[in-house]
Amino acid sequence: MSDESQVLAANRAFYDAFSHGSVERLAELWSEAEDIAVIHPGWPPLFGREDVMESWRGILEGQGPAIRCGEARAQVFGDTALVICAEHLEGGDLVATNVFRREEAGWRLVHHQAGPAPPPVAPSASGTVH
Amino acid sequence: MSDESQVLAANRAFYDAFSHGSVERLAELWSEAEDIAVIHPGWPPLFGREDVMESWRGILEGQGPAIRCGEARAQVFGDTALVICAEHLEGGDLVATNVFRREEAGWRLVHHQAGPAPPPVAPSASGTVH
Repeated sequence: MSDESQVLAANRAFYDAFSHGSVERLAELWSEAEDIAVIHPGWPPLFGREDVMESWRGILEGQGPAIRCGEARAQVFGDTALVICAEHLEGGDLVATNVFRREEAGWRLVHHQAGPAPPPVAPSASGTVH
Repeated sequence: MSDESQVLAANRAFYDAFSHGSVERLAELWSEAEDIAVIHPGWPPLFGREDVMESWRGILEGQGPAIRCGEARAQVFGDTALVICAEHLEGGDLVATNVFRREEAGWRLVHHQAGPAPPPVAPSASGTVH
């Protein structure tokens, strides 16, 4: 499996855990490193494993939102990768930047920013759109 | 100069060019690679050098916005680095994720996402806040 396919699979696993409200699964998909960060829409940026995971517990409390990832594109830069994708929610669309780092256990999230934006307008024909 | 300091200097140069409305300088600070991307607040994500630079030309037409970068933190992962920072504008605050790649000529931007969010609340004592 290509690096890009692996990263897109990790990105799918992230949204699968998100939509199922599984904090335990999210905790596995995020890096255990201290230099991770997250920027939820309208929140100040949060840094460090403890604050990042605490934010996910708050967001997923009870049950996860009906969220669907679309139009994901991966860019692999050595042991770091970006995925840019749309997040389709009932209340509207967001666009996210997800940053992954290659660790021993596989590609793990180190950063996520989501903000209100329309989805990509013209899927590329390069094969990186799913 | 440490990698982190170099990346923060590149980030300052980006906001300097941004606030001075210099498309020429932005064109130098962004990677010439095709796999670059940008997510401006409320815009669909844009991919590729042509569309990314065209967006900057549109945004900076006439003169650049009064934008000031604050609370920048850099995280270096080998030849890729993230800077998370606040963007203070007259109309309100945004938070940005800026992704840099180490190229022959130095650290160059490959991705930028900005979205509405309050600035970081508690500057860390780790020395990575400027």
